[in-house]
Amino acid sequence: QKSLQSSPSESDPLPSWREGKTKQAIMDYVASVTDPNSPHFIPVPDRIATFDNDGNLWAEKPLYFQLIFAMDKLKSLADQHPEWKKDPVMKAAIDHDTEALFKYGEKGLMKIVLASHANTTGEEFEQEVLQWIKTAKHPSLNRPYTELIYQPMVELVHFLQKHKFKTFIVSGGGLAFMRPWVEEVYGIPRDQVVGSTIKIKYDDHGEQPVIRRLPELEFIDDKAGKPEAIYKFIGRKPVFASGNSDGDLQMLRWAALGTHQSFMLLLHHTDAEREWAYDRESAVGRLNMGLTEAPMKNWTITDMKNDWKIIFPPSDSK
Amino acid sequence: QKSLQSSPSESDPLPSWREGKTKQAIMDYVASVTDPNSPHFIPVPDRIATFDNDGNLWAEKPLYFQLIFAMDKLKSLADQHPEWKKDPVMKAAIDHDTEALFKYGEKGLMKIVLASHANTTGEEFEQEVLQWIKTAKHPSLNRPYTELIYQPMVELVHFLQKHKFKTFIVSGGGLAFMRPWVEEVYGIPRDQVVGSTIKIKYDDHGEQPVIRRLPELEFIDDKAGKPEAIYKFIGRKPVFASGNSDGDLQMLRWAALGTHQSFMLLLHHTDAEREWAYDRESAVGRLNMGLTEAPMKNWTITDMKNDWKIIFPPSDSK
Ligand SMILES: [Ca+2]
Ligand SMILES: [Ca+2]
Repeated sequence: QKSLQSSPSESDPLPSWREGKTKQAIMDYVASVTDPNSPHFIPVPDRIATFDNDGNLWAEKPLYFQLIFAMDKLKSLADQHPEWKKDPVMKAAIDHDTEALFKYGEKGLMKIVLASHANTTGEEFEQEVLQWIKTAKHPSLNRPYTELIYQPMVELVHFLQKHKFKTFIVSGGGLAFMRPWVEEVYGIPRDQVVGSTIKIKYDDHGEQPVIRRLPELEFIDDKAGKPEAIYKFIGRKPVFASGNSDGDLQMLRWAALGTHQSFMLLLHHTDAEREWAYDRESAVGRLNMGLTEAPMKNWTITDMKNDWKIIFPPSDSK
Repeated sequence: QKSLQSSPSESDPLPSWREGKTKQAIMDYVASVTDPNSPHFIPVPDRIATFDNDGNLWAEKPLYFQLIFAMDKLKSLADQHPEWKKDPVMKAAIDHDTEALFKYGEKGLMKIVLASHANTTGEEFEQEVLQWIKTAKHPSLNRPYTELIYQPMVELVHFLQKHKFKTFIVSGGGLAFMRPWVEEVYGIPRDQVVGSTIKIKYDDHGEQPVIRRLPELEFIDDKAGKPEAIYKFIGRKPVFASGNSDGDLQMLRWAALGTHQSFMLLLHHTDAEREWAYDRESAVGRLNMGLTEAPMKNWTITDMKNDWKIIFPPSDSK
């Protein structure tokens, strides 16, 4: 399955990237490690590339899109749960009052994530996500969330795939929230997604066996969780890793030191006009230590404003 | 990467299978679901096939090969751990006294698995497994364990791959024990392996960040664990599932009821002469309920003795 958004010309596999040192570094790396005559040649099975998702493959402002899904779902169920209105966290979510919600910190967010992501079967949840992603629109940009993906990053994914890299998403976002749409939107197979999980249970007491999603956190795929999950789900150290926040640092530090030549990429959100500009002080997607560490370690930083010709795919691309 | 063992002729993709209803059922299924004009056509991304490993892709007698690895490793470390000799479970393992070991039941086995599989880094454990699998030999058959794979099953894996099925191992065996060698031996990529796990931890206190393997069980990929792990690691219901024991039943029951035409395959060990004959009463690899359930649900049963021309690859195949 190919993404809808990609149609690079024959001559330029990264047409949405401006010529410059970032694009050149990517092209040089891929040329070097895929050339059988290069001392840096990497055999195909070892060509593992991992991509963070929020703020790296699609936008993450004003807040993680998955939280908007959670609030939308709780709102749609509110009439059946009058008791939620008496709970300040649930009420904030139902009212989409993110300012009020954020006052309750991670505990508040976890509560609405569990309330909105559990107590369904795997198949029911899949349908809910698909329905939402097809119809919901971003509050300020007024476009479907799947059009708020970064066109240059999608081109990069496909460029690597074309050179036989196996591309994975490794995201703090929910595994089950991403799987239903990543294949069509990014061209990344749904079994090549690693993410945060809640507990599940096989249940064969009904007419048909089903997977039940339980209201209990299992694993957060962020920070040290990323290399742990890569070890567990992929079983090979990536040679190419890409992220945008300090939550990706452990993945990059670990992946950078494999036996093969590696390429570590950080996306710096520098474009207040076309997207958002944020880094060291941002609550969502903070990039602080990474900005200091990257130059010391020869990691590449994408400067969104200067390196990208366009941010999102053109509106008429569908 | 291709397995060393497979060289099917152009005309017959399953040359080690005898002509008969089992082989025919497999061929008919694959022809039907890969024909775009068939009402049973399955789109490529949905062609997920899962294979149990022990007793299904390779042998499992006199006991799981992974347990022999565990005992071999403990024996090799015994001199550094004189205290082990005073522990009856550890002593049984070091002495390869399986009869004594089995008296301690699952608790005893778990103890020797944790002692032999943890307290290393991911990379160290990988090297230990590789070293063992290259040198160890089966106690009665006197061949390397990687030559005790079922040639007809390897052909089946490759036949499905050729028809764009994505093939996964879903085994009660240890994930980290299988990954180092499955790619070369079966031609199944190491990230397409699902198995039992112990807890791990990312550790960046040393010179280089590493994954540490902890002496604590995390997950057993057997029985209900199989559909749970498939949901989590693969994210799609298989259309083709293959196993040999009652530990595979939940996987088969769940996979059999997807939206696509499915094929469920159970391997019945009926060949006391060329391999082993065991089913309803066996302690290792018991197939009891499955033998009753399969005919009621139109699952296919492979009769090892009658359906397979050869069991293992020829000795000179290397
Ligand atoms: Ca991110
Ligand atoms: Ca088995």
